[in-house]
Amino acid sequence: MKMTIKDIAREANVSVTTVSFVLNGKAEKISAETIRKVKAIADRNNYVPNVQAVGLVTRKTKTIGLIIPDIENMFFSALAKHIETAFLSQGYNIFLMNTNDILARDLESIELLNNRNVDGIIISLSKEATQGKNMDKIYTALKMTETPFVIVDRDIPRDDCAKVLNDDVFGGYLATKHLIDRGHMNIACITGPMTVSSAAQRLQGYRQAIEEAGIAWNEELVLEGDYQFESGYKHASTLLKKDITAIFACNDLMAYGVYRACLEIDYRVPQDISLVGFDDLMFSSILEVPLTSVKQNVVELSEKIVATMLGQFNGEPIDMHLMIKPSLTERSSVADAKRSV
Amino acid sequence: MKMTIKDIAREANVSVTTVSFVLNGKAEKISAETIRKVKAIADRNNYVPNVQAVGLVTRKTKTIGLIIPDIENMFFSALAKHIETAFLSQGYNIFLMNTNDILARDLESIELLNNRNVDGIIISLSKEATQGKNMDKIYTALKMTETPFVIVDRDIPRDDCAKVLNDDVFGGYLATKHLIDRGHMNIACITGPMTVSSAAQRLQGYRQAIEEAGIAWNEELVLEGDYQFESGYKHASTLLKKDITAIFACNDLMAYGVYRACLEIDYRVPQDISLVGFDDLMFSSILEVPLTSVKQNVVELSEKIVATMLGQFNGEPIDMHLMIKPSLTERSSVADAKRSV
Repeated sequence: MKMTIKDIAREANVSVTTVSFVLNGKAEKISAETIRKVKAIADRNNYVPNVQAVGLVTRKTKTIGLIIPDIENMFFSALAKHIETAFLSQGYNIFLMNTNDILARDLESIELLNNRNVDGIIISLSKEATQGKNMDKIYTALKMTETPFVIVDRDIPRDDCAKVLNDDVFGGYLATKHLIDRGHMNIACITGPMTVSSAAQRLQGYRQAIEEAGIAWNEELVLEGDYQFESGYKHASTLLKKDITAIFACNDLMAYGVYRACLEIDYRVPQDISLVGFDDLMFSSILEVPLTSVKQNVVELSEKIVATMLGQFNGEPIDMHLMIKPSLTERSSVADAKRSV
Repeated sequence: MKMTIKDIAREANVSVTTVSFVLNGKAEKISAETIRKVKAIADRNNYVPNVQAVGLVTRKTKTIGLIIPDIENMFFSALAKHIETAFLSQGYNIFLMNTNDILARDLESIELLNNRNVDGIIISLSKEATQGKNMDKIYTALKMTETPFVIVDRDIPRDDCAKVLNDDVFGGYLATKHLIDRGHMNIACITGPMTVSSAAQRLQGYRQAIEEAGIAWNEELVLEGDYQFESGYKHASTLLKKDITAIFACNDLMAYGVYRACLEIDYRVPQDISLVGFDDLMFSSILEVPLTSVKQNVVELSEKIVATMLGQFNGEPIDMHLMIKPSLTERSSVADAKRSV
């Protein structure tokens, strides 16, 4: 039985990544003690280095690793499909990995893809990875691969890496401004979970539009949801008892919950209440009252990701931090506000 | 510049797979002439064999390749997530590849995953791959990897490989029988595209239930859709002019089109027309009139896939052809048929 890198890691009581770095001569960040220990174990056991990790390290494989947090979330599955299509047209194949929003899966996926010699890694981080110290862990893991990478959609506050992000602040502003332009003054907002950066940013955009219009800020009209149908339904049931004429639901799923709440108290959209969503899911166009919604520009996002990655491959100067502006898809869920009597 | 397997393939004018087989001693199906040619080129150029393909060939990597036809189709994204979860619990990671229903992408994905030494391949074939001679191509490509594989959801008529399939005939029967049990006699069917096996099988189940109940077969009540919203809408507009009391839409998306057609002529579901869908998408539960729909058992499907794969790894006897039975999720879109007057 041949010794593997995992066996060495176990014996040396260090991570597989550490062993890999030592044996591949990428050990700048690793202690001299660990390097000595790992090398001794490898020598003693006649470890045959893995060509996959050593000999091929400079050879291009024309493959890209793509790590996403939730394959069942329609935004991410659409994004994955577009990224893949864009890379295919450049002759690259995509290995996709799904993390279920778990940091450990982010880290494992990075290692597995790196071991498979992908030319680059695109990552939309797990929720866990965007919090506190985890941001450093994920950043270090990405840097240590010495493989070009691009951070997509979910951000970490590091300047020295390539990012292509959605401009969620602008999206929240766009939704709210649209309601204000139709004469609405009392606009409620059902937010996403505040631990997720997109949720905080959409709310920021809402606030910006409210303040710009000189409308008094009313904390009571903002309720924190969790991006799921049920929270839209529950919060709408509360909000519809207040003096409001419009709701901005920070994603479409929650907007569907608002429709349900309206139905139960015989409110009509848009006659009795105007509604704007966010994401522009396919289902929003086939609803009985099609939903006006903010659309993330997945095509442009994908194209910029490819350009950013290829730029890194070719050593060209690239724009490190790109923000992609969403647009508003207007349908039938918004009406002019009734004049107060 | 080191010579790669691709360079050899080009010089010998054979496929990369062929070169790989020759150099890895898996050349049973390859002509002596080709073997000689490939080996000569490799020797002449001092080709250093790729440990990835040679030395590691017997080593387990604890990774599985999963190939699906459309990541944006919610059935497949749910299936991918469940398969991944089931394999993770056994210590396996999943590399996912999406083919956009293109045969060439099936073949390329098989080769790429095989080159990355996955322990097994799970494949839900592209539409193209399930037609005519393509079935042989895909079967040969899978066999030549000498890696255990499991065919999932979409079938090819070969007996000597492991398959885990949905029982779509039973699903179609279940939907139609439910309508018959509620007193419906004039039941229309909007099918999927007849080139796809699931569509033909769901129709077969419909026919089986109709004939079992002794209802006269009426060809005019069966219209071929394409699994998209628009075809459900268009065909429903035609069917609702006929003497029917119920529609079986062979997927939920087309059922949503039926709702839209009903709305336009002021028909109510289920008072004026009963409706059953297929797939049980999440959206079916949040509709104004929640949809009764056939639910594929993705959890059982995933578990059987894992069991079939692990059985192959361990050389255990496995059930080669498993059919997973769907169930019916009853909601509010079916009412008792009105008695004729």
